[in-house]
Amino acid sequence: MFNTDSSKPKAVVLLSGGLDSTTVLAIVSKEYRCYALSFNYTQRSLSELQAAQRIAEAYGARHQVITIDPAVLTGSALTDTSIDVPRVHTEGIPVTYVPARNTLFLAHALAIAEVQGANDIFIGVNAVDYSGYPDCRVEYIRAFEAMANLATRAGIEGHHMQIHTPLIDKTKAEIISTGVAYGVNYAATVSCYQANEQGEACGQCDSCRLRRKGFEEAGIVDPTRYYEA
Amino acid sequence: MFNTDSSKPKAVVLLSGGLDSTTVLAIVSKEYRCYALSFNYTQRSLSELQAAQRIAEAYGARHQVITIDPAVLTGSALTDTSIDVPRVHTEGIPVTYVPARNTLFLAHALAIAEVQGANDIFIGVNAVDYSGYPDCRVEYIRAFEAMANLATRAGIEGHHMQIHTPLIDKTKAEIISTGVAYGVNYAATVSCYQANEQGEACGQCDSCRLRRKGFEEAGIVDPTRYYEA
Repeated sequence: MFNTDSSKPKAVVLLSGGLDSTTVLAIVSKEYRCYALSFNYTQRSLSELQAAQRIAEAYGARHQVITIDPAVLTGSALTDTSIDVPRVHTEGIPVTYVPARNTLFLAHALAIAEVQGANDIFIGVNAVDYSGYPDCRVEYIRAFEAMANLATRAGIEGHHMQIHTPLIDKTKAEIISTGVAYGVNYAATVSCYQANEQGEACGQCDSCRLRRKGFEEAGIVDPTRYYEA
Repeated sequence: MFNTDSSKPKAVVLLSGGLDSTTVLAIVSKEYRCYALSFNYTQRSLSELQAAQRIAEAYGARHQVITIDPAVLTGSALTDTSIDVPRVHTEGIPVTYVPARNTLFLAHALAIAEVQGANDIFIGVNAVDYSGYPDCRVEYIRAFEAMANLATRAGIEGHHMQIHTPLIDKTKAEIISTGVAYGVNYAATVSCYQANEQGEACGQCDSCRLRRKGFEEAGIVDPTRYYEA
């Protein structure tokens, strides 16, 4: 059932189906009518998209899966199967960084926000765990927002387009605690870089490692289904 | 034959197959090895893409057609066949404005530039004839460039990503005169918003009107093939 309460403003929410973006949707859906956007960019884990669909429905959000031309997002372990997903985090920009990914995601969100008459875009980027990704930093988000307000009708007609990052400074444990307070069912979310078709996680990649540690630090039982022991 | 002269730096050039972007490619291909990008976004005129392919080949540029999900670029007379393309220009933002189009185009160009190791992106936007389009203004381009340098490896590794707009302040007559000096064959270009399958122009839309006037003011015979008398 879609949220059609016209007293609430519209928002566009980027929803991967993972822990962070699901927490964002849980927070935002209290105040906004949400358009949840997921992206199909031939990432390894399509079970994320199925999770996103179910999560959007659970929050009464409209859900749209947008395909990004597979020729564009290359050169990352997440999109190029010839590069192994690493088990441990190394220094510098991680090999799981996808060039210009958040810029492509936000550019699509901006187009849809403008057409739908939404002035608010929410993205679950996090600068604590993803400090090596240039496009997860607050200065990047502020620069995108400044650009967005020059790019669109907003810039000429005077209403302001805002990019919100409610998780940017939170640790994984804080994100999980927040989500639990909002009633998020984390068993429905898929964070793993190489989840299987059933949405079960490897338990070994950077993303699994961060997630598992987050539940431990939050003192909350990890509901993730793992396919490795 | 591709330009494989490795003494030249790489550039990404947005190439619609129209008059402006072809002029840009003619200028840039003297100094750079060019990756020409065209976009298929279910615009009315697919003959533009065929023109772009032939033009890229003529300049030794690699050419890539990128598909943008048709669900994204809506709400414009150029993408929505239920909105008529106007014959005369009216005040305000034109109905041919496509929400966030240049942001989507440049976001794709940025991803490809980063993967290819190019630090220069060229776009044929023009603030003289398209003053009503928010994303054709120089302040928008500078904001995109600032964002691009925070979004990518460039921002962390210190090489600078530049967005070049060689036509931004030129009149259509000046663009045509420049192109003719570079040997551009404008008969091969398609500018019309509703060109037919043979690449013939309507002669009536905003884009045709501007183009025809440009040739007149430049004192150059208009080589455009029109399907209306």
